[in-house]
Amino acid sequence: MVGYFFSFEGPEGAGKTTIISMLENFLTEKGWEVVATREPGGIDIAEEIRAIILNPSHQKMDGRTEALLYAAARRQHLVEKIIPAIESGKIVLCDRFIDSSLAYQGFARGLGIDEVLSINQFAIDGYFPSLTIYFDIDPKIGLERIYNNQQREINRLDKESLPFHNKVRQGYLQLVERFSHRIIRIDASKSIDEVFAETVAIIIGKIGGREKTSFH
Amino acid sequence: MVGYFFSFEGPEGAGKTTIISMLENFLTEKGWEVVATREPGGIDIAEEIRAIILNPSHQKMDGRTEALLYAAARRQHLVEKIIPAIESGKIVLCDRFIDSSLAYQGFARGLGIDEVLSINQFAIDGYFPSLTIYFDIDPKIGLERIYNNQQREINRLDKESLPFHNKVRQGYLQLVERFSHRIIRIDASKSIDEVFAETVAIIIGKIGGREKTSFH
Repeated sequence: MVGYFFSFEGPEGAGKTTIISMLENFLTEKGWEVVATREPGGIDIAEEIRAIILNPSHQKMDGRTEALLYAAARRQHLVEKIIPAIESGKIVLCDRFIDSSLAYQGFARGLGIDEVLSINQFAIDGYFPSLTIYFDIDPKIGLERIYNNQQREINRLDKESLPFHNKVRQGYLQLVERFSHRIIRIDASKSIDEVFAETVAIIIGKIGGREKTSFH
Repeated sequence: MVGYFFSFEGPEGAGKTTIISMLENFLTEKGWEVVATREPGGIDIAEEIRAIILNPSHQKMDGRTEALLYAAARRQHLVEKIIPAIESGKIVLCDRFIDSSLAYQGFARGLGIDEVLSINQFAIDGYFPSLTIYFDIDPKIGLERIYNNQQREINRLDKESLPFHNKVRQGYLQLVERFSHRIIRIDASKSIDEVFAETVAIIIGKIGGREKTSFH
């Protein structure tokens, strides 16, 4: 028996973290073994890579360097944490995965979705998520949620301008269209309870039959 | 007027560093402005990436992670140091570049030359060296040279077994054949003076006419 691999995407402030936490509790109560994670996921090597990416003093970082570093951290997190969990039959809930790189670096920074996809295909080596949920929200609302939350630290990526975040959203919407077999869009401007209910319906629809994941 | 970009490749202990230093002096005396460099080249971001790769405690590092990190460090070094030097008309002598990744990760570690080439094409974005010189030597002789040199620190890659280094050599020889328009092999088991004379002849043959580099 193998597990499932779900990833969750969306602009900053879309509510991914909250929904994943609620989903983790829900699935655990239903008797599933759940691993909720996000890159770099406590993996030493990936944490060190992530620290380089997010260091606010690295203003000279080239967009391609950044994309390669994200792909490297993703690879190590996948190998050390996600694959072992899937192979032992667990459900993996991952906060951001390949589509973040496609939307942020590929589309919004203009590196090209196909170019960034190619380095990420090298990184994930066939381990695409069984399903990806995209929480769609107007970036203006998403960023207001972040800045109003005193407990949340603002990092270099949060500080990018609103036009950039609007481009990120455009990128995600292109991905939803292009990879419609894998990515499902949810309107994240609704209440948390509504968004959670829609998320649960999608996940249960997928794991109901416990069919094998696509990569086994 | 634009400059030139030469890279130098070879197994550990092939004498690259010595020859590059002699070549730098030679070309400088001839009136050229020369930048001798090697990844990560004193570029902060690239130095930090390199430190992750070479940390001996990172035994869990996946081969694909390593290849992506090399590509990331290469990108930043290229953007911050090599491209500005070429564009101001200098001669860049680079100790190792894309072919190291193709031989070490692509061939010797079995990731595939084409796969590693694809992420490196993303990294260099068309900036292939004008010419690459491969110093060919039996790895047994090369490693003996390293271990007999007390001043040289042994890192994680040096410690790999001899069979691995033999595979690296096989990889390089495949690259010489496949990219014969760009890579020239020199027998590095000869004396330093002989290897240097051959290197000078090749470089002078290329820069004699000061023809424009291929990427401008």
